[in-house]
Amino acid sequence: MNALQPWFHTMTNRPRLLITMGDVAGIGPEIIARAWPKLITLCRPIVVGDADSLRRALELVKSPAVVQEVLDLEVVACGPKLIPCLQGSEQRLTEVRPGQVSAAAGRAAYDFLCLAITQTLAGAADGIVTAPLHKEGLRAAGLPYPGHTEILAEHTGARRFAMVLFVSGPGKREMVGLGVAHVTLHLALRDVFQHLSTPAVLDKIQLLDGLLSRLLEHRPRIGVAALNPHASDGSLFGDEETEIIEPAVKLAQREGINVSGPWPSDTLFLRAKDGEFEGIVAMYHDQGHIALKLLGGRRAVNISAGLPLVRTSVAHGTAYDIAGKGIADPGSLIEATRVATKLALANAKQPGN
Amino acid sequence: MNALQPWFHTMTNRPRLLITMGDVAGIGPEIIARAWPKLITLCRPIVVGDADSLRRALELVKSPAVVQEVLDLEVVACGPKLIPCLQGSEQRLTEVRPGQVSAAAGRAAYDFLCLAITQTLAGAADGIVTAPLHKEGLRAAGLPYPGHTEILAEHTGARRFAMVLFVSGPGKREMVGLGVAHVTLHLALRDVFQHLSTPAVLDKIQLLDGLLSRLLEHRPRIGVAALNPHASDGSLFGDEETEIIEPAVKLAQREGINVSGPWPSDTLFLRAKDGEFEGIVAMYHDQGHIALKLLGGRRAVNISAGLPLVRTSVAHGTAYDIAGKGIADPGSLIEATRVATKLALANAKQPGN
Repeated sequence: MNALQPWFHTMTNRPRLLITMGDVAGIGPEIIARAWPKLITLCRPIVVGDADSLRRALELVKSPAVVQEVLDLEVVACGPKLIPCLQGSEQRLTEVRPGQVSAAAGRAAYDFLCLAITQTLAGAADGIVTAPLHKEGLRAAGLPYPGHTEILAEHTGARRFAMVLFVSGPGKREMVGLGVAHVTLHLALRDVFQHLSTPAVLDKIQLLDGLLSRLLEHRPRIGVAALNPHASDGSLFGDEETEIIEPAVKLAQREGINVSGPWPSDTLFLRAKDGEFEGIVAMYHDQGHIALKLLGGRRAVNISAGLPLVRTSVAHGTAYDIAGKGIADPGSLIEATRVATKLALANAKQPGN
Repeated sequence: MNALQPWFHTMTNRPRLLITMGDVAGIGPEIIARAWPKLITLCRPIVVGDADSLRRALELVKSPAVVQEVLDLEVVACGPKLIPCLQGSEQRLTEVRPGQVSAAAGRAAYDFLCLAITQTLAGAADGIVTAPLHKEGLRAAGLPYPGHTEILAEHTGARRFAMVLFVSGPGKREMVGLGVAHVTLHLALRDVFQHLSTPAVLDKIQLLDGLLSRLLEHRPRIGVAALNPHASDGSLFGDEETEIIEPAVKLAQREGINVSGPWPSDTLFLRAKDGEFEGIVAMYHDQGHIALKLLGGRRAVNISAGLPLVRTSVAHGTAYDIAGKGIADPGSLIEATRVATKLALANAKQPGN
């Protein structure tokens, strides 16, 4: 127990987290294999995936751990050298090659996730940490989802949700860091404008506030990014600040949320880096991602806000170019597991998501 | 001479640089006063501004230096405690208050710049380093220029030019760093699309290549940013990558420029931070500025590319909120002077801009 983070000392049971393997042609199996010794110090992890793929990955990274196939989550044992794996798909995966798009791997990744969702919603697990999917693999399997989020939303019936990109700071006893929610995400920049509205901005402020309140254990200081350069310099370049964003900020303030803005985005992230903000609502994908990738390097994680279950994810993809080489960095998976653990603990204290 | 940067050892004459004071209601005078001991180790600086404003600033920062008003740049002496100042305007500035918009200060800032341009074009100086203007001050004086760039372009007759935001790295003997040219700058994000074209992107690639070749003394490695998230993920979100940016990159490559892209902008800046690129062409203001402010903090400088003279600038504004308090950081001015010195030396070796 000596390797536990200090914030575990108050709990009786570590949360049970399901680690989904993602696309087995990618780096999912090997980052799980490499991260395992760290994961079991954080929570009670159970892999949902393919036992044979995991065994190959353990061999690849020269791990002495063994895989135990399990059927019932209630009676699972785990340890530094014992990895419980819930067989999550009936797909035949022996012919999947690292780095090659495979319909079987795509279908299996979908199956792993669906099983993890069902188990977690049924109360058999406290949350889900996902290794990466491959969009082309899903498509090859006739499952044209752009990614995890849409599958999660569909299977949990969530109508309001946000992806929050989170980078933790150096805090040990408490979770500190910066979380960024995006009002729009995977859209052409040209299409961003038609998706910005006061309700949409307000929605992301509320979701970010709720998520970070649980994660950081206090009401976060949130800054909302402007859309235009210099926050439009007094409506000199664009009017979305006054017409759309400012009204949302005011409505959120009236609800008691500690939020301000819209702020020019180039200095907003610098101010957050200096500690002024713990949450940022960005208007479009690159606005948030340029900053967080620079701030967090490869440590960033994704967190789903607004779902009826705890779910975090690595912030990287399947990395087909290096899959099967045993060199993939497990840092983001470890960090995602640390964050999911913290959120599961917050849920245990104060149920309801 | 012992405080000189190593790259001065090969030159006989340090370049003569004009430091324009900018808006005297802002932090211009005080950052010049604070930077002076460092500036004279870099070049032969001459202030173009208002002698009385400079004297007040020296008092404010408790500098023992004295101001000597000069009329002829050819016979100027300067030292750690002797600041030559070319009186650059006939405006009466005694009633200008720090932090308050003033038509006289706006007009004077314009006059300082015009005089510096005339003197430099006439060969009496080797380049210009500018302290910040205030747009409202200019407007109050009936001079509705958005900033320095437009005045410089008009007075030098330049038709092709680019503002490059530059952050130097830790190199001592050689100049190293990252320069970012923007295809569009002070525009509503909504208006960016109509200003993107293959010739516009190519133009900025060429200007950035030319500038960085002189500054870094070798052909730079340039990455061009995509417009859309994930570089549009194979035209899934937007087509500007294939229709506009890629053709410009190919044309530039055919000219021998070491350029690649379009790259997803969130990872492009991270790759540049890791040393893969020395120049980036960004499509819009915040794309470049979010990254460079995070990378360079307050050390960033602006460089004019494409003008028939050397000109650099601080990358911050007049900071009216702290003007007159003597606390403004002179770091960006020092850095801008270091870069201008380097460019003036490159010009001396290989004339023509």
